[in-house]
Amino acid sequence: MIPGPIDPPARLLMGPGPISAYPSVLRAMSAPLVGQYDPFMTEAMTETQELYRGVWNTRNDATLLVDGTSRAGIEAAIVSLVRPGDRVLVPVFGRFGHLLAEIAERALAEVHTIETEWGQVFPASVIEEAIVRVKPTLLALVQGDTSTTMNQPLDEIGTLCARHGVLFYTDATASLGGNAFEADAWGLDAATAGLQKCLGGPSGSSPITLSDRAVEVVQARKKIEAGIREPGDPSAPDFVRSNYFDLGMILDYWGPRRLNHHTEATSMLYAARECARVMMFEGRDEVIARHELAGRAMLDGVRALGLQVFGDVAHKMNNVVAVEIPPGVPGDAARAALLEDFGIEIGTSFGPLHGRVWRIGTMGYNARKDAVLTTLAALEAVLRRFGAAVPAGGGVEAALDVYRAAYRAAA
Amino acid sequence: MIPGPIDPPARLLMGPGPISAYPSVLRAMSAPLVGQYDPFMTEAMTETQELYRGVWNTRNDATLLVDGTSRAGIEAAIVSLVRPGDRVLVPVFGRFGHLLAEIAERALAEVHTIETEWGQVFPASVIEEAIVRVKPTLLALVQGDTSTTMNQPLDEIGTLCARHGVLFYTDATASLGGNAFEADAWGLDAATAGLQKCLGGPSGSSPITLSDRAVEVVQARKKIEAGIREPGDPSAPDFVRSNYFDLGMILDYWGPRRLNHHTEATSMLYAARECARVMMFEGRDEVIARHELAGRAMLDGVRALGLQVFGDVAHKMNNVVAVEIPPGVPGDAARAALLEDFGIEIGTSFGPLHGRVWRIGTMGYNARKDAVLTTLAALEAVLRRFGAAVPAGGGVEAALDVYRAAYRAAA
Repeated sequence: MIPGPIDPPARLLMGPGPISAYPSVLRAMSAPLVGQYDPFMTEAMTETQELYRGVWNTRNDATLLVDGTSRAGIEAAIVSLVRPGDRVLVPVFGRFGHLLAEIAERALAEVHTIETEWGQVFPASVIEEAIVRVKPTLLALVQGDTSTTMNQPLDEIGTLCARHGVLFYTDATASLGGNAFEADAWGLDAATAGLQKCLGGPSGSSPITLSDRAVEVVQARKKIEAGIREPGDPSAPDFVRSNYFDLGMILDYWGPRRLNHHTEATSMLYAARECARVMMFEGRDEVIARHELAGRAMLDGVRALGLQVFGDVAHKMNNVVAVEIPPGVPGDAARAALLEDFGIEIGTSFGPLHGRVWRIGTMGYNARKDAVLTTLAALEAVLRRFGAAVPAGGGVEAALDVYRAAYRAAA
Repeated sequence: MIPGPIDPPARLLMGPGPISAYPSVLRAMSAPLVGQYDPFMTEAMTETQELYRGVWNTRNDATLLVDGTSRAGIEAAIVSLVRPGDRVLVPVFGRFGHLLAEIAERALAEVHTIETEWGQVFPASVIEEAIVRVKPTLLALVQGDTSTTMNQPLDEIGTLCARHGVLFYTDATASLGGNAFEADAWGLDAATAGLQKCLGGPSGSSPITLSDRAVEVVQARKKIEAGIREPGDPSAPDFVRSNYFDLGMILDYWGPRRLNHHTEATSMLYAARECARVMMFEGRDEVIARHELAGRAMLDGVRALGLQVFGDVAHKMNNVVAVEIPPGVPGDAARAALLEDFGIEIGTSFGPLHGRVWRIGTMGYNARKDAVLTTLAALEAVLRRFGAAVPAGGGVEAALDVYRAAYRAAA
């Protein structure tokens, strides 16, 4: 039996990501392919780099895509910047800190972690103390960890890293596009992301930006494949232990030499380009403000439904909120009812929060008033069905109040 | 200046890949996203696995996708199957043999290569001799190497590998879907591919299939991330030196446990599913026969234009032919004229063939009569413009003769 063409059900994706993509991003992926050295293709790559300089707030020449999911970007950054035996410091405040540590361990780094309670972020002083003690080559720090919804402040960390001669990398997968990000002003040496959160695209392409200092590190480890190596090309003994993730080679592919590496994932490039294009067209700060507004409306809405919010709300990302599942309500059954009866997806949780909180996102295309209100109305109905005492219409009205106040302030 | 939406020029991609995708594959990618544990998503993943069992000609349970380009699939197979210090034997008959050796070197394997002249394949006896001498853990052998157009016979190699206790891996990126492939009958332990050749999709997803023996090897090296590890979960000291490419983890994500790893690249999954779906809907053997016919028509066509064909034509892949650039014709300028004036792309070459041959593909959607004839007509015009003496209409007529004979034989 051969199945029919793909025909997904209607879904409003209000979880921690992936979320419903911008319609124009979906359309971009159905554009015809061109050859990988077609002048149109190289121009599209160059445009994409420039668009992402806007998204990242950077002048970094080395601003490009890694062909894989957000996790591929993380691994490319770490494996290219860290040599086996190098010390890596990872402050862990949620699941994705563990992931950075795990990826650095796979790269045979000497990994040191510090941990804080889930739902909290680190003060800069605690990170500096650890830097002084560990003397790492690289600080690997998540910006927004969807597992806890926390948004780690990064603005002071670059200065600390520069003072102590440490490379500063952040995983901005969950936060980029929905929260402030300033690659240059914050002194980042490397940052990676994915499309499937606030950028409003599908998973499968990982934007990355590297400072000149990071480029020097990766270029010093360059190794060119025998199949295309020419006399005089370097081949460092201290090569990156991955071909696919060797950022030196990937930079040569994106750079003026256009040296063949992988075959660029054309449709994902189109998607990544469109994600950045719609953001820069609407305006980077306007898009972040839209996330802030939707996030605040959702926060007030769930509170007005009587739900407790998890974690340090002052440090919450704009684009996701973790709400405690009310006593007596079966978390998974309620989520399933939202999905099956309303076509709305919210998220479950990992690790210590599993079964304790739901995560509700307002990201990218879905950082919209109608998406917020629809979700709150459906959530109210489902909570009531499962026996929770919820005030009628309270969530929707509270969220609408946030929007009304914003409109008044703008008028 | 914010650029407009992506708007590629009309292109008929007749190079060695990427090629023009099936229209239905492009449409599939514009389907809306769903959540990664939505029942629709897990069903789509399961359907995709079953479709690729058809494409690979296998009953392997472990038949899935790696989220990245074809090179990502290669690296996942090698880094998961090979431990640092393991011996890997790579028979090299073109650029992509060098790539397998390079990726195995990055994985710190002890890599042994044997080489044959570009344009030739290896007799099984030569490979067996090397196996006996090297005693490798893994034989890594390209099936179709687009750099030379050769199609290495694999049908006897699995038996040799089994006899000597060697794991047998092949890179079928360029060949799968356009040439015979029998994962089980040929005794493959692992095989990987990409969508951008005969499967008629975009680069960015890598189909992979693993025998039970290969699964045992990767499962023995399992390591579960701290962030989602549960008591009793294994964490082998001999772990795979990559998180993203750890096939044990990727299998857990695709398997019944659905253990979170990467966020599946949904749109690329839709594309990969549709590539396999159109192939199985038309019929695997029918699609291969269509490639054989288009390839033979192109071969006769270029010969009738007076062009010399490079390499051992008896072992050529169906889907690509390498033609020597006629003396006096500037290869790159002629290719540029084809692209600019006719919107048709043919390929240049790598390494020893650079500047000597063009590569012309007939793959996937473009393994069609009209694509073959249009390309030959345009090529004739361009060759004439650059001063080559070409018989008027000879290429088109010779190709048409191939199609006419095939229609007669089928009638």
